[in-house]
Amino acid sequence: MIELNDETKEDYVKKIIEALEKEDISVFRDIFLDFHPTDQAEIFNNLEPEQRGLVYKYLSPEEFSEIFESLDIDEQKEAAPELSKDYAADVYNNMSADDVADFLGELQQPNVREILGSMDKEEAREVQELLLYDEETAGAIMTKEFISLKSSSTVAEVIELLRKEGPEAETIYYLYVVDEDGRLAGVVSIRDLITASSEEQVENIMSTRVVSIHVKTDQEEAAQLIQKYDFLAAPVITDDNTLVGIITVDDALDVLEEEATEDFGEITASRGSTDVNITSYQAAKLRTPWIILLMFFGLGTAEVINRFESTLETVVLLAAFIPLIMGSAGNTGTQSLAVSVRSLATGASYKKGLARTIWREFATGLLIGSISGLVIFLLLGTFYNDFTLGLIVGGSIVLSLGAASVIGMTIPLIINKMNLDPAIASGPFITTLNDIISLLIYFTIATSFLQYM
Amino acid sequence: MIELNDETKEDYVKKIIEALEKEDISVFRDIFLDFHPTDQAEIFNNLEPEQRGLVYKYLSPEEFSEIFESLDIDEQKEAAPELSKDYAADVYNNMSADDVADFLGELQQPNVREILGSMDKEEAREVQELLLYDEETAGAIMTKEFISLKSSSTVAEVIELLRKEGPEAETIYYLYVVDEDGRLAGVVSIRDLITASSEEQVENIMSTRVVSIHVKTDQEEAAQLIQKYDFLAAPVITDDNTLVGIITVDDALDVLEEEATEDFGEITASRGSTDVNITSYQAAKLRTPWIILLMFFGLGTAEVINRFESTLETVVLLAAFIPLIMGSAGNTGTQSLAVSVRSLATGASYKKGLARTIWREFATGLLIGSISGLVIFLLLGTFYNDFTLGLIVGGSIVLSLGAASVIGMTIPLIINKMNLDPAIASGPFITTLNDIISLLIYFTIATSFLQYM
Repeated sequence: MIELNDETKEDYVKKIIEALEKEDISVFRDIFLDFHPTDQAEIFNNLEPEQRGLVYKYLSPEEFSEIFESLDIDEQKEAAPELSKDYAADVYNNMSADDVADFLGELQQPNVREILGSMDKEEAREVQELLLYDEETAGAIMTKEFISLKSSSTVAEVIELLRKEGPEAETIYYLYVVDEDGRLAGVVSIRDLITASSEEQVENIMSTRVVSIHVKTDQEEAAQLIQKYDFLAAPVITDDNTLVGIITVDDALDVLEEEATEDFGEITASRGSTDVNITSYQAAKLRTPWIILLMFFGLGTAEVINRFESTLETVVLLAAFIPLIMGSAGNTGTQSLAVSVRSLATGASYKKGLARTIWREFATGLLIGSISGLVIFLLLGTFYNDFTLGLIVGGSIVLSLGAASVIGMTIPLIINKMNLDPAIASGPFITTLNDIISLLIYFTIATSFLQYM
Repeated sequence: MIELNDETKEDYVKKIIEALEKEDISVFRDIFLDFHPTDQAEIFNNLEPEQRGLVYKYLSPEEFSEIFESLDIDEQKEAAPELSKDYAADVYNNMSADDVADFLGELQQPNVREILGSMDKEEAREVQELLLYDEETAGAIMTKEFISLKSSSTVAEVIELLRKEGPEAETIYYLYVVDEDGRLAGVVSIRDLITASSEEQVENIMSTRVVSIHVKTDQEEAAQLIQKYDFLAAPVITDDNTLVGIITVDDALDVLEEEATEDFGEITASRGSTDVNITSYQAAKLRTPWIILLMFFGLGTAEVINRFESTLETVVLLAAFIPLIMGSAGNTGTQSLAVSVRSLATGASYKKGLARTIWREFATGLLIGSISGLVIFLLLGTFYNDFTLGLIVGGSIVLSLGAASVIGMTIPLIINKMNLDPAIASGPFITTLNDIISLLIYFTIATSFLQYM
């Protein structure tokens, strides 16, 4: 058995590359095919172009299709042109339709048509159907390779069916039962089948308590449902309850991973650039626009401070606490943002209603602000022994934190409701907004207290 | 079939509560037990104490154990005291050992001993074993309810075994084969069994290419492995390759969810407080320490600015760009932090090695800085027509962003390597650090240019 800790893996990879250099097909196939497709893909990714060429020669399209399925879209785009037209067509025919659709979704129309044309009619039809669904919906991530049963068939018949179709299907662990019109009627797990007697009819052992996903449901919602119920798969239906596909837990996992990365990008203004393995140039190209855009917002803060230049000139010391106040407001706002974004991501329900939740967040901000404000008041009073300054800074913190928490909480929710690009709600944007508000609060208070300083 | 869209669910919940008020046990059981345990738990959570009391009366410990398994730890802590000692013991006996262990892990020693004492010996033993493993390791999240096979048994014998033990096991989709010493020898999927002839011996159909997880592996690593290979379950082994448990994909999903929330908390200094449904007081109690701690760091920035008070007095306008420079450095640092934290979370490998990756990040920061710096230089030059100021601010941005990106990238990696509390690497801490550095850069440059202003 191939132990897959990295050391031993290394050795095997060396052997594989040796075999390729010696053009020793049998040794290559012996070792390489013994790996899990995920590992095969990993090894394949690290090969030189000419070595990749040999892989295509040494592996059947069917064997290579498993590797191709395990590649990232970008890696697939890289490999596809290296394949001969017929070889590629066979690879696509052997892939599951949803994986082909995901890949074609990233290509130009002409190429898509050419590839679909080269594929088996039946396969191409399924792929085309999947391509019709909007991106990021259940329909777009579901698979068509599922087994559906008639409620009238017996357990023995089903087992026989599994013998035949099992290898093709994406999963055989949940089997969905449909009526003569193809409408979802129930579900049978392989557990139920095995524990039932072979003459038993499906309708007597199936569960009619089926949690299903509408084909237009957002992919994240669909994935959360599968996670919530600990399902291995869930049926996807149309308005009239027709079973059109299934989503398996491994696809749900990938969706949740993808969405987590997205949320992360939003909160850090680094969307689509968190990949460690792109060049500095690529990374800078992706990230600079954010930074410059945010810098322009930042000019707003400069404007605010300029507006209070006279106040500053009278008490330059005030400048020293600009970062402190902005920082505290920023941090509190980010905390609220995290609460907000996480609650959206995990689909947490607002037990007490939205208004109450926002109010709770405001109260939280004021609470945090009052305590922090008091601390800084005493601190500045004692160390700088300037209680007026303490009052100004402390008071500003109370109000700024109250405001920051509401902004951090509500903006993502608003964005989400309006289905706008959530990046607008990203941490830095909210922080900049909070900066400006807290500076206004700070200098307004400071100016009004000026005569006492 | 109970369609689980929220409206219809509402109606059923009403009916359930009515039944409880009428103390109509049969109606209650009819409707309630028709729901998925996950939904039963959700409904149960929204009941009044006295209604919950009735639920314990109307449901057998076995029936309630499924609900109890679906509750959060906190909800379990709330419900447990409401149960009679014997009822509770039966509930625990019917739960899978890993869920009991997760619950007991949160209780005080004396209570744990008392509960274990009340449970069946065999069950209690399994739970105790799981409690021995460190938190957040594979051992702590694995389940003991798995089916292991002898390589000598036939497919028919295995099917027979599944009929008997199937209902107890956590999963029957992957069956692990062990030798006479209990060492992991291979794996058979139910697919293999169904497609094989019933006289076939397990050793002839099992795959010896088993990816296994060591019992001491970090839970996140384990979950990532299951995700990477699209497994439904993975075997957990000891040093001598003895099979001690399995981790199922649904547990892996929960771990990844938990870790994503943790990362989120780290980057936003809101660890453990992203729950929308806790009170303002609870939230403030969790979040205030962070804010105050960060405020103290913030005093560092005040100190820096104070140190350059004379510079500021000469050119008060300099204060106006403090937020801009700090903001840009903060945003770039946060982007780098996101790259770093995501790469740790998704276990992305540094194809080009760590040093090269950090260097890449530094180059990225300088690139972003140079472009942003140039933009602000021209902006200030033209609008404030003060190119010296532009040079100071622009130059500070170049250097600050370079520094910020390295800090944002490396600190999480260092923390991770040192196995320290990653919260230290949280966004706000890194941002505050970047604030201080960028202020030092800004005012040092400004002071040296003072004579030209």
